[in-house]
Amino acid sequence: MATATWTRRHVLSLEDFTSAEYDTILQTAASCREVLSRRTKKVPALQGQVVANMFFEPSTRTRSSFELAAKRLSADTLNFAPGTSSLTKGETILDTAKTYLAMGADMMVIRHREAGVPHAIATEMDRLQTNVGILNAGDGQHEHPSQALLDLFTITSLLDFEYPRLKLLADKKIAIVGDIVHSRVARSNIWSLTASGAEVHLAGPPTLVPQEFTEYVQGTGDQAESPIPNRRLFLHWDIEPALKDADFIMTLRLQKERMTAHLLPSLREYHQRYGITRDRLKLCHPGVKILHPGPVNRGVEISSELMDDPQFSLISQQVTSGVAVRMALLYLMGSGKS
Amino acid sequence: MATATWTRRHVLSLEDFTSAEYDTILQTAASCREVLSRRTKKVPALQGQVVANMFFEPSTRTRSSFELAAKRLSADTLNFAPGTSSLTKGETILDTAKTYLAMGADMMVIRHREAGVPHAIATEMDRLQTNVGILNAGDGQHEHPSQALLDLFTITSLLDFEYPRLKLLADKKIAIVGDIVHSRVARSNIWSLTASGAEVHLAGPPTLVPQEFTEYVQGTGDQAESPIPNRRLFLHWDIEPALKDADFIMTLRLQKERMTAHLLPSLREYHQRYGITRDRLKLCHPGVKILHPGPVNRGVEISSELMDDPQFSLISQQVTSGVAVRMALLYLMGSGKS
Amino acid sequence: MATATWTRRHVLSLEDFTSAEYDTILQTAASCREVLSRRTKKVPALQGQVVANMFFEPSTRTRSSFELAAKRLSADTLNFAPGTSSLTKGETILDTAKTYLAMGADMMVIRHREAGVPHAIATEMDRLQTNVGILNAGDGQHEHPSQALLDLFTITSLLDFEYPRLKLLADKKIAIVGDIVHSRVARSNIWSLTASGAEVHLAGPPTLVPQEFTEYVQGTGDQAESPIPNRRLFLHWDIEPALKDADFIMTLRLQKERMTAHLLPSLREYHQRYGITRDRLKLCHPGVKILHPGPVNRGVEISSELMDDPQFSLISQQVTSGVAVRMALLYLMGSGKS
Repeated sequence: MATATWTRRHVLSLEDFTSAEYDTILQTAASCREVLSRRTKKVPALQGQVVANMFFEPSTRTRSSFELAAKRLSADTLNFAPGTSSLTKGETILDTAKTYLAMGADMMVIRHREAGVPHAIATEMDRLQTNVGILNAGDGQHEHPSQALLDLFTITSLLDFEYPRLKLLADKKIAIVGDIVHSRVARSNIWSLTASGAEVHLAGPPTLVPQEFTEYVQGTGDQAESPIPNRRLFLHWDIEPALKDADFIMTLRLQKERMTAHLLPSLREYHQRYGITRDRLKLCHPGVKILHPGPVNRGVEISSELMDDPQFSLISQQVTSGVAVRMALLYLMGSGKS
Repeated sequence: MATATWTRRHVLSLEDFTSAEYDTILQTAASCREVLSRRTKKVPALQGQVVANMFFEPSTRTRSSFELAAKRLSADTLNFAPGTSSLTKGETILDTAKTYLAMGADMMVIRHREAGVPHAIATEMDRLQTNVGILNAGDGQHEHPSQALLDLFTITSLLDFEYPRLKLLADKKIAIVGDIVHSRVARSNIWSLTASGAEVHLAGPPTLVPQEFTEYVQGTGDQAESPIPNRRLFLHWDIEPALKDADFIMTLRLQKERMTAHLLPSLREYHQRYGITRDRLKLCHPGVKILHPGPVNRGVEISSELMDDPQFSLISQQVTSGVAVRMALLYLMGSGKS
Repeated sequence: MATATWTRRHVLSLEDFTSAEYDTILQTAASCREVLSRRTKKVPALQGQVVANMFFEPSTRTRSSFELAAKRLSADTLNFAPGTSSLTKGETILDTAKTYLAMGADMMVIRHREAGVPHAIATEMDRLQTNVGILNAGDGQHEHPSQALLDLFTITSLLDFEYPRLKLLADKKIAIVGDIVHSRVARSNIWSLTASGAEVHLAGPPTLVPQEFTEYVQGTGDQAESPIPNRRLFLHWDIEPALKDADFIMTLRLQKERMTAHLLPSLREYHQRYGITRDRLKLCHPGVKILHPGPVNRGVEISSELMDDPQFSLISQQVTSGVAVRMALLYLMGSGKS
């Protein structure tokens, strides 16, 4: 596995990722996928290294994916259980991180419900002149880089299985549909997809669209041009123009809690306006594929039968890609260590 | 370890197990027990394979036993924690299972408080043409095959340590005492023990005996003949006829919650009528042995001093057998995989 | 790694530890620290052995340290989760321990909020003629031997990195400050530090000082001589005489719950009377170092900026020492096993 172009110690955000970095991750993930197809799906790449999974916000799915990725690379894993931790005893998060550092953690995978926590820990680790790598596994409504990277790996692999790379998306149209404003997944995907040169179209209810975009919408009716210079990003309040000729649809998970906060009408009405259905697919490019970060609310973001239709749904490939991409990230971040 | 006769992908129920299958498991478990007696109690049989322990109903004891069995075979394990899972986010159980499938789980060990869940997952895995193996670790009041198999391994090993096999029980009498109706352990044991040709006698309070048996009881006073054709199964409301000349007594755990549902008199009265005591052992065959799936309510199902008496109690051997039998199951189910 | 002088099966208390035993642990921990500095921080010393972490009282920090120590020695680990355990089903603690014994645990690391539980389990394991080793990871207000041993390793390593040994402390003065009476850490440290010949000075609020010491205090004003024969142990109600010319200060974690029990004034008042500040350090020996078992209440036991000052604080070294010392304990206890 080649690591020539990798110099990044932490993976916190995709905002400043270069094309070369995306391509290194995609190629390394392809190598990891090859490992996962072998008889013995394990390599000793990170033997003796310790990956601490620090999920201050619980998540079985993402935590299991990182844990499995670490084990496939022969790393030892430590799982931090927030409920039973010193945090309830009043310890600060930085002190918790420093404790895991002192225990010998080589990498920390961090999820927290507040934006910026992984970044703050990374800054502290650098200030202490350690070479611990921090991986953001989702911070508040900010970013979720490994999810966006696995989405990228899933769709570029579809276009060229052996040699997935960013530029394959240059002439594609991708729709991101749903609760944009609260979605760290959307935010990370916007960075990676627009970096590829693809046209990215966001569609969602006005209450669930980022404030920073609304001025653009107000200027142009229901469509806005990109607030990010030189990137092709468009915004819609209706789903139809976003889906028109789209090559990929990324649906976002709807947090049902939003409804109680009156940001949303009923689930039924949401599905009627923004749900992906077989009918709406007719607007898209014939070979359109659907992604969802999971877990899906069947019949809300997407109709139940469409979710299970392998002709359109990439949902299960996304989960599989997740292990390969997380192996790639841990491998790239960890290989300079020992 | 020989696997010649094994073709079963899932282990969900013992209802349709053949003699050859029982004997394959018993012999493989004997080999695993031999591994556990070595200096290094580990074999690389399942290296690189992933066993997902999906205990939707929490259980430290059974989960630890499966986890240890998997680790002794060098498999990687993933533990699913229901409290922190996507299920609380509204994901269906089948979607959860498909997520673990997509992550690369080779086998799933499933416990759920509702009968049929492991079977439903296995059906879905087959429909998707995967070769994932599903192991029922207890579903509602339905079955708990690995518990019945470890009971079988414990008692047949006592009769022939080197070559435990089903037919050793052909002329034995076995009493199963307690809360039959709510016991998945009893249900699985009834299948395996009657398959051996042994005489199986059930004894318990009328409220805790399966409905399907009561017509037999009503026909014959206090004893009923087997509702399963060609199997020697008898039912009693008093414990004495069940214990008479018994070679083995299987006591069942009493769920104290049953009492609040008025299905039971006091614990003291239960112990008086159905508790295993030194006095009651006099009714049995002199070499009688006692089993209990644990955890024991001391002084309820069995007197505390009897539980600790190695002359009679097989309780700790059962736990030890559990690891060997679960190794055997994972080995047999997993060996065709890679 | 040399184990010549080690014959102890369990580590429950430091009360009867010999100098030779302390030195064996310190030397073995130094070897383990060397392993942790290698490229691959792992040795196969305990391959195939099972370490059961039975934390009846939750603790992420100590449990992670033991888990990592076990994994560095290639042991398999089992984590017992009290919330989901059979204990809630009424099983006794001894029965739980016997279950893990029967499953094949070679060592059990036990934390419980009641004093004496690890000792009771060890007694039962011996009575059953097993060779399972029990390691007390904190029992009530009684002892926490591995914490005191890591403190000892931290400070003796500072005096002679290559060859840490007990007698290096013979002419040192060590202050232990805070909630002495409720601290298992203090209790274990008193045994090890006084055994070294060091002068140990305790200082804390009268309500937080052990009853057994108060008669000594009453006899001599505000200072008492050692209630342990031949050991140099002194007691103060003010912090100043304890700190005077001290070489090491061990601060204890303040349990905020104590305040609600009216055993303590406000946190502010506590800090004013017993908090370690830059000003108070002037009383000490110029090279004084500060220890704290963690997690620290910043600004209570110790001022926040002092805690982060590497010139004085050994807190992060303590955490690192913890893994090496726990490796040493598991190695010494386990090496005679297989």
